[in-house]
Amino acid sequence: MHYYPTYIRNVIRNISKLPGIGEKTAERLTMHILRAPRNEAEHLARSILELKEKIQLCRRCFGMSDGEVCSICRNPGRDDRLLCVVEQPADMVSLEKSGAFSGLYLILGGTLSPMNGIGPGDIRIKELLARIETGKIEEVVLATSTTVEGESTAAYIADRLEDYAVKVTRIASGVPIGGDLKYVDQITLKRAMESRHALK
Amino acid sequence: MHYYPTYIRNVIRNISKLPGIGEKTAERLTMHILRAPRNEAEHLARSILELKEKIQLCRRCFGMSDGEVCSICRNPGRDDRLLCVVEQPADMVSLEKSGAFSGLYLILGGTLSPMNGIGPGDIRIKELLARIETGKIEEVVLATSTTVEGESTAAYIADRLEDYAVKVTRIASGVPIGGDLKYVDQITLKRAMESRHALK
Repeated sequence: MHYYPTYIRNVIRNISKLPGIGEKTAERLTMHILRAPRNEAEHLARSILELKEKIQLCRRCFGMSDGEVCSICRNPGRDDRLLCVVEQPADMVSLEKSGAFSGLYLILGGTLSPMNGIGPGDIRIKELLARIETGKIEEVVLATSTTVEGESTAAYIADRLEDYAVKVTRIASGVPIGGDLKYVDQITLKRAMESRHALK
Repeated sequence: MHYYPTYIRNVIRNISKLPGIGEKTAERLTMHILRAPRNEAEHLARSILELKEKIQLCRRCFGMSDGEVCSICRNPGRDDRLLCVVEQPADMVSLEKSGAFSGLYLILGGTLSPMNGIGPGDIRIKELLARIETGKIEEVVLATSTTVEGESTAAYIADRLEDYAVKVTRIASGVPIGGDLKYVDQITLKRAMESRHALK
């Protein structure tokens, strides 16, 4: 890297710290930034600085937000009787992209994992119960992953919600749409077979 | 993209403007930056801003430089009797990586291309001649690409140097024909540099 001037080396080093970006790609991106119009590079740099300054946790769903309450929680068009529980902010984004859900969210911030010492006090179980106690919610959709941890977290929450007057549902698991049966793993296939449903 | 807060959307948009980075990758990188320690994001952003402020053209070789004269041109350990002519700064970096050349450089800033209206006045032919006239140079190594334009630029320069008391050499075509120097592997480049041959 010594063949580059210091200021170029710094950018290459910082860019190659990003996940999945090797030194070759970092070099290529740095050269692009060097050649790009000054305002393009400035917009990039300033947006990164702003990101760290401005993004905060929404105090209702604990997702990423521009202000105290995020745009989804603020949106009067969302159905506030439906609450979807997910592990991470990225899961909420995936569900939003699918367009399949019009209610509100609560982000747990992880899954129960006794092996790693993560218990109910380390994810937002308390916050979830407090949210349900405020009243309006009629259905809690558990949309944690279908991993061992995700499944047991869903089961734990379902248990905790026994005494609340809410319906508790779990997103379906099975063969992904467009999936070729011969490439689907056996556990998924088994689950899909077990939860088969009548077509009429 | 509306499912993201504005400040996140801005970073995704700016990162996905970089070459070879799609929206999915931009999302992934943005999420990483959001989770990364504050100083990591700041170093990245500030190094990009500094890049545009501090990098200038070296006034001797016209390469990328931290100051008026780059570290290679300033290095008293380099052989100032050897001058290597390349098309672009990235070509110089590739040659430096190969470790096969210990002289100085001159970056043309392009190749002759009559089809695109690029003539001798549009690349640094005048600067090259001025550099040779200052005296010390004994050998000019033409390391333009082995593309049609690169070859004809090398031939043109060899012609122009007929009347100068310098040896003119061309890197060997161990470099695959049609190859762009910056994508050639270092061993091939080294071989090409070692077996350079006289053009006159």
